Amino acid sequence: MQLQDWGEEKFIQYLAKQFPVKDSIVGIGDDCAVIPGEQGMAWLVTTDALIEGVHFLKDQITARDLGYKTVAVNVSDITAMGGEPKYAFLSLALPKTVDCTWVCDLIQGVKEACEKWDLLLLGGDTVGSKRDLFLNLTLIGSAAATRIKYRHQAQFGDVICVSGYLGDARGGLEALQKQMAKTEDVEYLLYAHFHPEPNPKQGIWLASQSGVHAMMDISDGLNCNLTRLIKSSQKGAVIETTQLPISAALARVSLEHGWDAIQLALSGGEDYCLLVTVSADDFKSIQYSFQETFGLLLFDIGRITTQPAELIYRKHGETIQTCCTNFDHFQ
Amino acid sequence: MQLQDWGEEKFIQYLAKQFPVKDSIVGIGDDCAVIPGEQGMAWLVTTDALIEGVHFLKDQITARDLGYKTVAVNVSDITAMGGEPKYAFLSLALPKTVDCTWVCDLIQGVKEACEKWDLLLLGGDTVGSKRDLFLNLTLIGSAAATRIKYRHQAQFGDVICVSGYLGDARGGLEALQKQMAKTEDVEYLLYAHFHPEPNPKQGIWLASQSGVHAMMDISDGLNCNLTRLIKSSQKGAVIETTQLPISAALARVSLEHGWDAIQLALSGGEDYCLLVTVSADDFKSIQYSFQETFGLLLFDIGRITTQPAELIYRKHGETIQTCCTNFDHFQ
Repeated sequence: MQLQDWGEEKFIQYLAKQFPVKDSIVGIGDDCAVIPGEQGMAWLVTTDALIEGVHFLKDQITARDLGYKTVAVNVSDITAMGGEPKYAFLSLALPKTVDCTWVCDLIQGVKEACEKWDLLLLGGDTVGSKRDLFLNLTLIGSAAATRIKYRHQAQFGDVICVSGYLGDARGGLEALQKQMAKTEDVEYLLYAHFHPEPNPKQGIWLASQSGVHAMMDISDGLNCNLTRLIKSSQKGAVIETTQLPISAALARVSLEHGWDAIQLALSGGEDYCLLVTVSADDFKSIQYSFQETFGLLLFDIGRITTQPAELIYRKHGETIQTCCTNFDHFQ
Repeated sequence: MQLQDWGEEKFIQYLAKQFPVKDSIVGIGDDCAVIPGEQGMAWLVTTDALIEGVHFLKDQITARDLGYKTVAVNVSDITAMGGEPKYAFLSLALPKTVDCTWVCDLIQGVKEACEKWDLLLLGGDTVGSKRDLFLNLTLIGSAAATRIKYRHQAQFGDVICVSGYLGDARGGLEALQKQMAKTEDVEYLLYAHFHPEPNPKQGIWLASQSGVHAMMDISDGLNCNLTRLIKSSQKGAVIETTQLPISAALARVSLEHGWDAIQLALSGGEDYCLLVTVSADDFKSIQYSFQETFGLLLFDIGRITTQPAELIYRKHGETIQTCCTNFDHFQ
């Protein structure tokens, strides 16, 4: 049997079983691991790898954007649990024939991201690679232990909301692959694809609200991440697709090119905004304060239901079928 | 200009310049980064990548040994600064066609190592890879902040010593590459190559001795690691090659096959024992107590001198020329 017959979820379940944890430590299964610290503080640790030919094509992303993105995707994981990102460790496997200018640009992208989020890059590993480039970043953050939000804490009746537009990054990827002319809208989508902007301040703020129950980031698409959230919470969800936040740019480009924007929003991936479930009683006031604080809307897109693992999509209240395909690294 | 024209050392110097640190944090440049913790404790963090075709050939190492080794090389880095390894994070990039049995064996090797050193594997990333396998492990350890040993603390007159035999792992690699018949001696060398045995208890014990000044692990060969240690300490070193500890097995196999055992000991790499400099006044008592505690000799192989970056090899007191080549990932 090959890994593709198993699939990513089953492999991760196998890993989680092999490595049980103890002493209020949280291991495999959420956006970050949680290690209790002193005086009510906890450490959050996450790690993400970016592989040439899988996560990026070297001739389709600038070195600087790649460096930036390697950091940003990890910042998103720390943000998703309400932590403050702090210390980064970068492993680089590079063919020895790679151009020094390219490498320096890559490092400048890493540096740009470290400065943006006030991170210290404290170490790593630099090794050769026969062919493909591999980048791996481990990021350590901190949080008040009692404020950390997990994906398993969704409660029946919670409002499901997201902190940003969905599908833009996937629209950018489509535009890239189709080598579309760079109109202003296309440029916007490409930027979303290359330059994710997780905001730890939003994560920390949301984590400090007792009305916020579950939280995770939308890195693999709403459908995939919401499926994980409800499985983990042993709940279900109903999503009103007409309420999915679609940017004006994605709407226009979709219209012009016959894309299904809702489909991109559901299966897209790499949005790197937050998926949050909020107590229905507190939602309006949290939404208001969030907008006061960050100038952004928390978009109400659905409700948590009781039926474990059941994810229903509706359009104007009517149940609809979607054909969401979740990305699986091994399938 | 390509990365191979720059070389690994220059690239690491470039990285260290780009990412300065602050607040008594130690960043790029030693075996681990050091992050101050509470109550006199500090966190040590290290990360090491193993790349197919560079660090290993998939048909020449068992999956289990590869998994074990991925953990062991990181344990060696924590050991080298006197820390206790604690939490591991594993990134795996695997082609989807890889056999599930192979993957499970790999994970069992990781598990064997985690159990051996009482580590918790708390997370990681599992992603696809187009062709080559890529493994990255980040390991977090802890230590009493005042007891951490660095490579820059060697002092003039220090005894230079090593905590184990040198060259065995390289002998094993030679035997593997030459497909030598598996005599008992060859089996011993192969085991040393596949199954490094860093001992954190030794590192912690040595770090607790005020007479121990500088410490690092011998992962890239004595010549390479000692060169780094003296550069970092702005000192020189003289090594008496007749005192280099060579195992009986390596000596016998070298004799039989015409290998230069001293050369293997100097340039070999992957020994994963400790390189330590000890105050001359304290050396005898530390050597005695170390042997009492661990049943092993700390081998006295030379002295720290004043001439910065000058590394002299002697044979029975006479200066000799060696042709050590240090491994450079990008050359």
